[in-house]
Parts: sequence; structure tokens; C-alpha cells
Amino acid sequence: MTVEQINNKGQLRHLLTLADLERNDIEMILDRATSYLTPAGHAPARDTILRGYTVANLFFEASTRTRASFELAAKRLSADVLNLDVNTSSRAKGESVVDTIYTLQAMQVDIFVVRDASTGIPSEIARRVEPHVSVLNAGESEVSHPTQGLLDLMTIQRHKQDIDQLCVAIIGDIKHSRVARSAHEALVKFDVREIRLVGPSELLPENGFEGAARCTELSDGIRDADVVIALRIQRERFSELGQIPDTAEYFRRYGLTEESLRAARSDAIVMHPGPMNRGVEISAAVADGPRSVITEQVANGMAVRMAVLALAHEHVRDSDGRKR
Amino acid sequence: MTVEQINNKGQLRHLLTLADLERNDIEMILDRATSYLTPAGHAPARDTILRGYTVANLFFEASTRTRASFELAAKRLSADVLNLDVNTSSRAKGESVVDTIYTLQAMQVDIFVVRDASTGIPSEIARRVEPHVSVLNAGESEVSHPTQGLLDLMTIQRHKQDIDQLCVAIIGDIKHSRVARSAHEALVKFDVREIRLVGPSELLPENGFEGAARCTELSDGIRDADVVIALRIQRERFSELGQIPDTAEYFRRYGLTEESLRAARSDAIVMHPGPMNRGVEISAAVADGPRSVITEQVANGMAVRMAVLALAHEHVRDSDGRKR
Amino acid sequence: MTVEQINNKGQLRHLLTLADLERNDIEMILDRATSYLTPAGHAPARDTILRGYTVANLFFEASTRTRASFELAAKRLSADVLNLDVNTSSRAKGESVVDTIYTLQAMQVDIFVVRDASTGIPSEIARRVEPHVSVLNAGESEVSHPTQGLLDLMTIQRHKQDIDQLCVAIIGDIKHSRVARSAHEALVKFDVREIRLVGPSELLPENGFEGAARCTELSDGIRDADVVIALRIQRERFSELGQIPDTAEYFRRYGLTEESLRAARSDAIVMHPGPMNRGVEISAAVADGPRSVITEQVANGMAVRMAVLALAHEHVRDSDGRKR
Repeated sequence: MTVEQINNKGQLRHLLTLADLERNDIEMILDRATSYLTPAGHAPARDTILRGYTVANLFFEASTRTRASFELAAKRLSADVLNLDVNTSSRAKGESVVDTIYTLQAMQVDIFVVRDASTGIPSEIARRVEPHVSVLNAGESEVSHPTQGLLDLMTIQRHKQDIDQLCVAIIGDIKHSRVARSAHEALVKFDVREIRLVGPSELLPENGFEGAARCTELSDGIRDADVVIALRIQRERFSELGQIPDTAEYFRRYGLTEESLRAARSDAIVMHPGPMNRGVEISAAVADGPRSVITEQVANGMAVRMAVLALAHEHVRDSDGRKR
Repeated sequence: MTVEQINNKGQLRHLLTLADLERNDIEMILDRATSYLTPAGHAPARDTILRGYTVANLFFEASTRTRASFELAAKRLSADVLNLDVNTSSRAKGESVVDTIYTLQAMQVDIFVVRDASTGIPSEIARRVEPHVSVLNAGESEVSHPTQGLLDLMTIQRHKQDIDQLCVAIIGDIKHSRVARSAHEALVKFDVREIRLVGPSELLPENGFEGAARCTELSDGIRDADVVIALRIQRERFSELGQIPDTAEYFRRYGLTEESLRAARSDAIVMHPGPMNRGVEISAAVADGPRSVITEQVANGMAVRMAVLALAHEHVRDSDGRKR
Repeated sequence: MTVEQINNKGQLRHLLTLADLERNDIEMILDRATSYLTPAGHAPARDTILRGYTVANLFFEASTRTRASFELAAKRLSADVLNLDVNTSSRAKGESVVDTIYTLQAMQVDIFVVRDASTGIPSEIARRVEPHVSVLNAGESEVSHPTQGLLDLMTIQRHKQDIDQLCVAIIGDIKHSRVARSAHEALVKFDVREIRLVGPSELLPENGFEGAARCTELSDGIRDADVVIALRIQRERFSELGQIPDTAEYFRRYGLTEESLRAARSDAIVMHPGPMNRGVEISAAVADGPRSVITEQVANGMAVRMAVLALAHEHVRDSDGRKR
């Protein structure tokens, strides 16, 4: 059973996957996010709209940057924030995820931010919570990372005019990447002209990613691309890759360098979800160079997380029985 | 030396054990707690009375739910909250508990919420702190968990008229249960008619629990009971239990099911302190069924923790030398 | 390249080492710190000046007390506080420290409080951050712990008239002690009359500490001292110490006791940075006795940390491009 992410008033209730959102829902989120951007060096946007609301960051999978981003977003909106880092092994011994949620819900948590290494947990939670409660997916197995997809789309939009004219190359371990999946979902909603998945054949997905081309050569993959997204490669992968035994060889074949980037358009932007392996999937010169918009991605991520928290709070606020 | 929990103005200073409180002290706490309840789905109660006060959650024993409950309670009262998770092994290497307390006290912590796996630590801390400082026991070895006892009493009172007419059955590992001890202490203050301790003989306590009956058969234990409290059973216990080798056998003999509950009164309520082992001490149907008041316990627990923090703050506020 | 700690308006931007500060810079910090002291038992000082500012506590080395102190200091100044405990092993696998900083900076963190077990990290970060961002050293390898040096100086000043008339004895593992180095740096700025480094020869530093005398006998080292600072000794050190096989022998030779302290001046004060090993470097009677100012050190530490946060915030606030 699919969970409705948009309530019957057209408000964002849950954010689980971009695949089921309409383009105008995404535009609503990004418009709100844009309102939370402030120029570099200026004070961050702040608001009191979540005062009296409780946000629980329920991280069953470790994360530093995504958790920090959601935590600061919630605090800048004046929420009470509860951080719960529950590793999967203790979850196995302890109570079920659903009982944890019921417990926290009884403590009057309004919004759950959930990250989990297995598939389906955020949706399962969304199915079980009371009608006024909201669930935001902060990373789910290899399948979905919607705030990352939104921040990637937002970053591209702020640099390029028309998404439907763009060619976007995503490079690396596409097969296991929730970042790639969510970016693809966001971009196809905006009729991107072309997406190319680039990487060793073992790391290219057989299914999904409708309409995307596959390339095993970097030079083919990024030729005339407007946007180049490098993904983090896990060191554990090299044991599965016949022809690429180590990071040095990976860098030689798929690393973004000033030289390899010459195949892309001269105004191409370079993105990376972080954390970066400098010298593996990207050179330091590119990461810190003029095409890189990597720190902008982080700033846009803050704005996106403030936006989804602020929008979800409107659902909570307006729910029947929610008197404030 | 016993530590006085009530100061000479009749205010709650420490909460260490329910055994030494008077019935009217408990009523004072529960009255305050009731004032912090809001209907399900409504916004949580909030107050600014702890603004400028500092609450330190000093957890020497891991806890997710009790810590979350105290943390949110303190935040909703506008306290500055400091979470310190100090595991016992690092405590062994590091400074003494008392020095940790002296250090935090010098940082002007006003209220310590302490959880510890050994006996006597909360009282020891209470004996050592300055006169204006308050100590709240958040779980102490197998002997005391007073906020749990209070929330259990509160939950029963909200469903049943007169405690002195009630029969309460507590089922499971009574011997090692601070939850059972604190529930017993609370209920006898209110002249409960009957308490029955139900479980395998190895898990029934030889001493303490004055006036309580022991039963090794579930059907005897819950016959005509008004309140049935299931306790969490640790898997480690099964090695000590001659006739109950595993969770399946435990469930068969002591599990609360719709069938086994037929022996209780038809209006009996079912409680559990959490986290639940569904299918071990309680069936999912009972846990989620109409007799279950388990999530109410959690909500009442929030209210109880807000109440004891608010009352303790009055001691701090009114102490000599405390000018605000 | 040395990093400027004072900006061109004379404001404290970074706090990395006391060695490069002028005496009047230190006086500026201590004056501010003094304004944040309140009498024992009174409510802590609070201020709203950091409202809207974000402080990240980035602890690559574990700490309970220093982190608690910085966290409470930031909260009492109304900052949004982000705690990041990143152990060194996960740092090795993950992104570089500099990328972590760039990421947090893009989330609009204003002030970084950094603790690290290796040398040079706080300065390296200070070199890389944007002009409006501030970095405060919360403990760096064996070389620097400037807020500790400041709180030690402040504690001495509050008990003794003229630093240039004082003899200060520091006892223990001087060689590996950032506490000793920062205390020495602070005291020489104020023309302390005499510093004596006292301990087993293996634990006395060969270099640095200009002007300080070395003593291997406790009675010589503390003779007529006005101030006696005991350092924590790590149990691991005993394997390196030929003549001192265990804590009992260490206590016999270097432990501060009422008896050994008779050699010091009758009005000498006793200090310890904590956490204490009672019965190893200091007896319980001395730690809790009338000469001890150890809990005052903690209270002064809170005030010092509030002061450096408040001063650093003035740099952030007044930086070009920082419009609030």
C-alpha cells in the first residue's frame, strides 16, 4: 500500500520518496527552501514556527552530516529536538521499530526524521503513525534519499536555466546509490534531456533509472555534460570489481580531474554528495575548483531540510484534533 | 543515613524512592502531572518555569526511552539540558561519581537526573550535593525506579476508581525488577487491596514486597485481577530457569494473550513498562488491544517527569542563597 | 604560517594558544569572564548575545567535562549548539577534517570548538575557515589547552595579589601535559616570579617552559610555593618509570597530602585540572580541604568559556558581509 505523502489539503505530510511526488509538489518545497537561503557569510535564516513542536531524529544508520543538517534546520525553526542514535544491533535486541515509534509518539513527537540501512522502514513508520504525525526520510538503504535529491535539483536549478535542455552525468557506484536514485527521480520530473550513468559495469544498475543511458567509459559519459555528479565509492567495492583493484586505478579510470573534465561542457558544474574521497572519485583541484558547487549543495541542503520541516509542521498544525 | 526527599517547606527536593514518601507527597506529584496532560493529538504542555535552570541527565546505564522522556520533559519546561552518557567501564577508569557531580555542580547544574546499574548511587549523590541542588532517580539497579512507579499509579488511577478495592497482578521477573518494586511501593501507599507477584519460582523474590502474594501459575495469578502488569523478561534469564528453556515456553506459561487474560476481570487493564518483547511476555493482540494502556503509560510518564522537574525546581528556586 | 588570533579591530577571533597572545588580550578575556561569575548557589549568568549564532563542538578526542563546559557556556549565551563526537578511527575512514569543516561552515556554523589528540589541527582549521568564522581550541594533543590555562590564571588571580611575587609548583607528568604548557604560557605573560616543574625525571620536559626550574623531589619542588598544581597521571605511564612501579609508590613520592603540603606556604592554594585520581596524585583530604580551589577552577572555566564564546561572537558579528 502506497503512503500518501501529500494530504487532502495539498500539504506535504510525509517525505518518503520523490518518485510519487508531482512536479508542483517539488516546486512548492524548493520555493520554500529558496526563502531560507541567505548569502554566504550572512546569518542563517531563522524562524519560530516550530516553537512547541517536537522533532525526533531517529537514526538507525550512523550519519554525521545529514543528522547535523536536520538538527540545525529544526533548531533554527525553534523546534524541540530529540536525537536518537540507535544502531541496528541494539535494535535487534530491543523493541521493534514500530514500538519505538509508538513510544515516541506518546511523548508527543510531531515529526520523525528517519534514517535506516534497510528498505521500507520510513514507509512502514509513516503507515503506522497517527494522522497528525509526519515522517521525513533521511536516507533509506540504497533506494531513497529524497532531501538529497531535492538539494541536488535545487543546486542545478540555481546554475542552469532549463532542466529540459540539460545532460547530467552521474559517475560511480550507481547500483548501490540512493543519492543517484533520488537525483534521477527529481530530474525526470523536470524532463531532464539526458541522464547518463557512468561507472564500471559491475556498478551500473540493471533495472530502474528509466530513460538513462549507461556508459562504462568516463570520457563518453561526461562528453558535453552540463552537470557532473561524482558519487562516493566505498572501499569495500573494490573486491567485487574485476578490473579495478584499488583506489588508484579507480581514480585513473573514473576520477574527476581537470583533465578528464575537459570532455564536459566548459560551463559544466561538478557536484558530490559528500563525504568525498579526495584522490579517489575526485581530485582536490576539482573539488576546490571553480566548477565545484559542492559546498553550495550543503547550504542548499540546510534550506531544503528547513523547508520540509516547515511544510510538515503545517500538516501537523492543521490536523484535526491538533489545537494549539 | 536516609536522605530527606521533602524539604522543610514541604517541597519535593529529591526523588530517590517512593518507599519514604507520604501519600500526600505522591498526590502532590500526580496532581502536578495531571496538569501537564493534554489530549492525544494536541500540542504538548509547555512552560517556561525552568528557563535559566540547568538539568543534567547523567546516565551511567544506557537508556533510550527514559532518557528521551526526561530530556523532552526538561526541554518543554525551557531548561538548559545537558546529556551525559557515561558507561560504567569508562567510569571505572575515570574519576569517581562524586567528583563528576562536584564538577557539574560547579558548572551550576541545578537538577541531576541519574540512572545507574548499581544500588545506592542516586542516594549517595543526593547526600553530597549542595543544599539547593536536586537529584532525581531515573532507574537504580534492581531496587528503584520511582518515576515509573508514579506513572504506573497515575495510569491505574485514571482508569479505576478506588485503589483500595483493586487487585493488581505483576507478571514476570519480579525478583530483578525495579519496576515491580516501585509499583508495589506506590500501590501500598494507596492501600491497594491485593498485589500478586506471578512468575516462575526462580524469579519470585524471597524478601520485600510486604503483603504481596506469590503465584507460580498465571491463571491463579491474574484471576479476577483489575490490573495486569507484564514485565520485560531478559533473554539471559532462561539459563537460570529449570523448566522454561526458551521464550516460546515462557510465552506458553506466562505470556499475556487474549485467552490467558480471560481469567482476569473483564474490565482489567493491561500495562507494560516497555520495551516489550512481543510474543514473549505479551502477545501483539493484547499489546495493541482495547485493554492495553501501554501508550498511555508513556504519555503519563512524560507528565510525571515534567511534574518532578517542576517541583524540584521550586526547591532550587526557594533555597537560601538562590537569588534569581 | 602563524594564524592571527586577534583581528585588526583588536577583537579575539581565534583562541589557539596563549603563547601568541598579549597580556592585555588575556586581561580582556579574564575581565569578560569575571563578568560571568555569579556567587556559589546563585543562578548562572545568562545572556542572549549568541541568539541566532551556531556553535559546533567538534570533539575528535573524547571529553566529558570540557565538552559539558563549552556546551553549557554556549547554551547559556543562547546559541544553537551542535555536538559532534567524531572519534579518530572513523575520521581515518571518512572525509578529511578540512572537508568536515567546509561542510559545517556551509551549514552556517559560526564558531568551532575543536578538541583533537594530534598537534596542529585547530590551527589548520583556523587557517582554512572563512574570514568571519572563529575557532576555539578545547585541547590539542600535549601542546595546548588555552581555556584551561586561562581558568588556572583566573583562579590564581582571585586568590593572590601579584602574580609577579608568586612561586607556582606544577607536579606530575609535565612532559605530556597540555595543561602545564598552557598554565606556563599564561603565567609568564604575567611575569610570575618562579615556576617549578616537579616530577620523576622521565616526566620532566627537556625543552620548552623557558625559565622554569626542574625538581625531582616533591619537598624541594613545593617549598614555600604559593600555588601548587597537581596534574593527573595516566596509569599507562608507570611502565616507563623505572623507580615508580605503581600508583602507591607515586603517591608516596609525589602525592599531595596534608603532610607533604607542609613544605608549601601556609596560605598556598591547591589546584588540579581534573579528573582527579584520588589517592594517586592527591589525597582526598587535600582535594576536599580548605586549601583546595579545585571546584572554583571548574566554575571559572565556565566563565572563561562563556567569555571566549562571547568575544569570538563579536568578531563574527562585525565581520564584513555579516549582516544581522
